Amino acid sequence: TEKSVLVPIANGSEEMEAVIMIDVLRRAGADVTVASVENDLQVTASRGVKLVADRSIGECTEQTFDLVVLPGGMPGAERLRDCAELKEITQKQAARKALYGAICAAPAVALHSWGLLDGKISTAHPAFSDKLPDTSAVEQRVVRDGTVLTSRGPGTAMEYALALVEQLYGKEKAEAVAGPMVMR
Amino acid sequence: TEKSVLVPIANGSEEMEAVIMIDVLRRAGADVTVASVENDLQVTASRGVKLVADRSIGECTEQTFDLVVLPGGMPGAERLRDCAELKEITQKQAARKALYGAICAAPAVALHSWGLLDGKISTAHPAFSDKLPDTSAVEQRVVRDGTVLTSRGPGTAMEYALALVEQLYGKEKAEAVAGPMVMR
Ligand SMILES: [Cu+]
Repeated sequence: TEKSVLVPIANGSEEMEAVIMIDVLRRAGADVTVASVENDLQVTASRGVKLVADRSIGECTEQTFDLVVLPGGMPGAERLRDCAELKEITQKQAARKALYGAICAAPAVALHSWGLLDGKISTAHPAFSDKLPDTSAVEQRVVRDGTVLTSRGPGTAMEYALALVEQLYGKEKAEAVAGPMVMR
Repeated sequence: TEKSVLVPIANGSEEMEAVIMIDVLRRAGADVTVASVENDLQVTASRGVKLVADRSIGECTEQTFDLVVLPGGMPGAERLRDCAELKEITQKQAARKALYGAICAAPAVALHSWGLLDGKISTAHPAFSDKLPDTSAVEQRVVRDGTVLTSRGPGTAMEYALALVEQLYGKEKAEAVAGPMVMR
């Protein structure tokens, strides 16, 4: 069964994190919507890579997703945080106990600002992890607490994307996706 | 001193490989030109990510680069191979003993088709590595032979990009770039 995933992007999003999540989830068979929180569909990511979203975030507010996951990068994570539509979509996701997550700067900057990490164990980029409400597992590369998954940076993004695949489709699918990518 | 790098992209290029190389090399301070070999600057990569190049490959033929490096992905690697301008740029690079490289499908499909791996030890994606002229080191994740560097897939792309940084800027810079990315 096809799972639907929302990956929002902004000017200043970390392009490796965004693209690794989109690509790996699509390899698993997910229907991934890349949504811009900017006025334009085209954004300029943190290291100048120009990405074109599939849709504007405003077109995604009526849809229900199996997973909503935010890339990091600065100021991208702040621009995601400041998007009212994305905040509402992600809060709705949490309220209905569906999967959501973020990597790098985004757990602290976006999810935590929205109150979505309270009482949750999480991680983030080392430069942001002291801002999390529960820092007991920040050294782990991928942290899951119930329906929230968080991770640390570009170097953990592939493991993180595979952990998201495992949550949506199971361990066997995650291993099938990892194989041809030459992970180890 | 700023180093100049050419990363060509095509419809069907592997977006993780392309973006990881561009991003990591820019983190090191390189002046990276992302050049489309298609009529449009915008390409649709192998898993549907839409990337917008900085320039058309035709605008790059007069420039001299410190490094020319090709992402994999299919049919992206074939479309890079079939681009006469890119072939000429890369052959010129080899002739003047400057750095060039490729990852995943591209070492076998593009570099080897152009005669640029003859007498060189190289690697490629497991599905393509038996087509290389010298398969003695195909199990290694990153292979350097003189001025040619090759690698295997999305899972090896970050190590590969850091090896390219090390070639251009030295080991210390590669370590400085790797740190904040949370590699290990
Ligand atoms: Cu970051």
